[in-house]
Amino acid sequence: MTGKTLAEKLLSEKSGTDARAGDYVEAEIDVAMAHDITGPLAFQTFHEVAGEDADLFAPDRTIFTIDHHAPADGVQAANNHNAVRDFAAKHGANQFDVGDGICHAVLVEEGFVSPGDLVIGADSHSTTYGGLGAFGTGVGSTDLGTALASGELWFRVPQTMRFEVDGDLQDGVYAKDLILRFIGDVGFDGCTYKAAEYAGSTIESLPIHERLVLSNMAIEMGGKTGLVAPDDRTAAYLERQTGNEIDLDDAFRSDDDADYESVHTYDAAELAPQVSKPSNPENAVDVTDVEGTEIDQLFVGTCTNGRYEDIKIVADILEGETLAPNVRMVVVPASKSVYRHMLNTGVFQTLTDAGAVIQNAGCGPCAGYHQGVLGDGDVCLATANRNFPGREGSMESNVYLASPATVGASALYGEITDPRNIQTNRYDDTIFAEVLP
Amino acid sequence: MTGKTLAEKLLSEKSGTDARAGDYVEAEIDVAMAHDITGPLAFQTFHEVAGEDADLFAPDRTIFTIDHHAPADGVQAANNHNAVRDFAAKHGANQFDVGDGICHAVLVEEGFVSPGDLVIGADSHSTTYGGLGAFGTGVGSTDLGTALASGELWFRVPQTMRFEVDGDLQDGVYAKDLILRFIGDVGFDGCTYKAAEYAGSTIESLPIHERLVLSNMAIEMGGKTGLVAPDDRTAAYLERQTGNEIDLDDAFRSDDDADYESVHTYDAAELAPQVSKPSNPENAVDVTDVEGTEIDQLFVGTCTNGRYEDIKIVADILEGETLAPNVRMVVVPASKSVYRHMLNTGVFQTLTDAGAVIQNAGCGPCAGYHQGVLGDGDVCLATANRNFPGREGSMESNVYLASPATVGASALYGEITDPRNIQTNRYDDTIFAEVLP
Repeated sequence: MTGKTLAEKLLSEKSGTDARAGDYVEAEIDVAMAHDITGPLAFQTFHEVAGEDADLFAPDRTIFTIDHHAPADGVQAANNHNAVRDFAAKHGANQFDVGDGICHAVLVEEGFVSPGDLVIGADSHSTTYGGLGAFGTGVGSTDLGTALASGELWFRVPQTMRFEVDGDLQDGVYAKDLILRFIGDVGFDGCTYKAAEYAGSTIESLPIHERLVLSNMAIEMGGKTGLVAPDDRTAAYLERQTGNEIDLDDAFRSDDDADYESVHTYDAAELAPQVSKPSNPENAVDVTDVEGTEIDQLFVGTCTNGRYEDIKIVADILEGETLAPNVRMVVVPASKSVYRHMLNTGVFQTLTDAGAVIQNAGCGPCAGYHQGVLGDGDVCLATANRNFPGREGSMESNVYLASPATVGASALYGEITDPRNIQTNRYDDTIFAEVLP
Repeated sequence: MTGKTLAEKLLSEKSGTDARAGDYVEAEIDVAMAHDITGPLAFQTFHEVAGEDADLFAPDRTIFTIDHHAPADGVQAANNHNAVRDFAAKHGANQFDVGDGICHAVLVEEGFVSPGDLVIGADSHSTTYGGLGAFGTGVGSTDLGTALASGELWFRVPQTMRFEVDGDLQDGVYAKDLILRFIGDVGFDGCTYKAAEYAGSTIESLPIHERLVLSNMAIEMGGKTGLVAPDDRTAAYLERQTGNEIDLDDAFRSDDDADYESVHTYDAAELAPQVSKPSNPENAVDVTDVEGTEIDQLFVGTCTNGRYEDIKIVADILEGETLAPNVRMVVVPASKSVYRHMLNTGVFQTLTDAGAVIQNAGCGPCAGYHQGVLGDGDVCLATANRNFPGREGSMESNVYLASPATVGASALYGEITDPRNIQTNRYDDTIFAEVLP
């Protein structure tokens, strides 16, 4: 019998079985989440399966956010918000309101997720939690509604596709470039219902906010989850963010003789900044292939790259500069704490002075609802995670995906620009200096 | 022959006739404005009447703003934005983009309007410019489109309804309370196609940003315009805001023996803070009549009360405090300069710390498009100008209108609260100390 993958170990633990890829298991949920779009649907299922007055399986580990249409951009959205507020209040669950931020940012920052947890969210980017060594995965509203009552859900234990990266990334190259390259190599469905596992010396040296980028976009190649084995860096990050002490003694990592579906190896030093061309994240090319492409809108934000460190990279590039005259920029911090940190450190002021329009923390225009929807013919360069036709608005618009550094550099010139030509800081020392080994 | 009203003098000057109430005149336009909703319709008319390649009558005095759906909250909005950008660029007109602010704030702040001007805007609140002693009035997109080519428009010279206020306002009572009372007294259609003229010692002592409130809401009683005779205070304000020197030698004021349609006199000292109940601005009552009404949302902003001085009043009340737990607050500065001033003076931080969600400069949720739309059953207390059924969202929502002070005080308690019970500053000295006589 071979060893086990991290994914197999996590689901073994949560199901109380010796779970192997392909097995079906019933697993215990640690944390459940839904937002203003998926919540109301989940509540309906919950009421149907458990009754109007049933209890949540664990109100303290259930989180509802208002982030997708926040503030309300229509009556239906406003009614959904009230449904979330009412359900959370009635059942004593955690609830975050307009401006508090994106579910995936909130759950990480507020300490709801620990290494080893099984986290389900009624949002596809719930793979994000894998960056902390938790099995995070997106589920439908109906599944979530059932699990809110039972605290359990079935899973087919996924095979694991391992992405192994060694060496040093070039200046101007980030986790976003890595994940765009991975998706480009395996295709948007190449990892469907498999666990992506990110490993190697490059991944180990990534700060947690960068690991979260890799896990977040696992779903863009179909991944059931996207895992990074938790380590001292994970513990230090969580202790700093949440004040909770993290015990890694029982934390899992894949066995050396684990059985992988496939292993993909990369030399970090060879990777150029990546840009995914319209209209699929898998259309990843070296930035040099699309340099000079004219842009109308820049979008900095989302659960992928709306963290303080991401926005700081853009602000550092734009410090004392203004946007190229042909572009506009929308910045949407991922959480209220990011927003406040931007205010306290001058990042907010720098971006405003440069001409950016900053929105409240939330999902912003990522899914084309509001706060910067694209019109016919508009070209957008975004730190977002999806660029399918019409994703950010018009079916006649075009979205390119890139890292914050590439977006920041391109903002200066009004066209897609190689960030290696610009002086950028790798990471913001003000946050991570004290926790980086 | 009796003397003339200010309105008659302004239209006499612009038409080159001896214009009297009831006359029809063809008048020369000084300034023309449209925004992202009305602009594209006006462009269509312009093209029909003047041809695709015609010139604007005065590109330097033509202004297009993107404020109502800014940032774009849908594909149609985004396409309208692009239509505005393209038309303005082609014709060399002034264009303000997402985040630059509300048309009426921009035109005043950027120095486009001077006392004596005839200003037409394809927006009903174009009466605002009357606060500077200009004949400001709203016109339809079709009228505007025609005038963009000809620089002229016909007017029926309005009768004048004079509101004469003397004495000192109580602490906690503002221009907003005055205008709500006027509307309450004459009714929402009581001033239809008449000029409202605001006069008396109280009006003369009002800073310009407060006079603009009176003029802005003239339309809420049907007024064609809402005038305050320009004076040294007007000149000082404009010189400070725009750097332009203002010559008042030729500025008009009504003759002592002018023929008014009616004169309404008020003792300022007797006026309580006013609240207009749902769902008509004319439902103005003393705040004491509705004290204790529970609120879900507070909205601070709009072309009526989104100026720095307005928002500063709210911030002063909320300094070191937090919103009552049952309410949320949306703050939408009227212009980018307001937004920046909020950042520079700490008002932005104070409101954020209190729990408010601040949006980019623009119209925000005022007309129910986005950035805080109301759901069924929601109760909103707003510094806005309209509370018709469904104005800010659901037909089942209720909007109360009040001054920034009343909104700020109510934010502390989560219910409508008399601002006279709270320590408030009458006006922000940091801006006006130097220009007030």
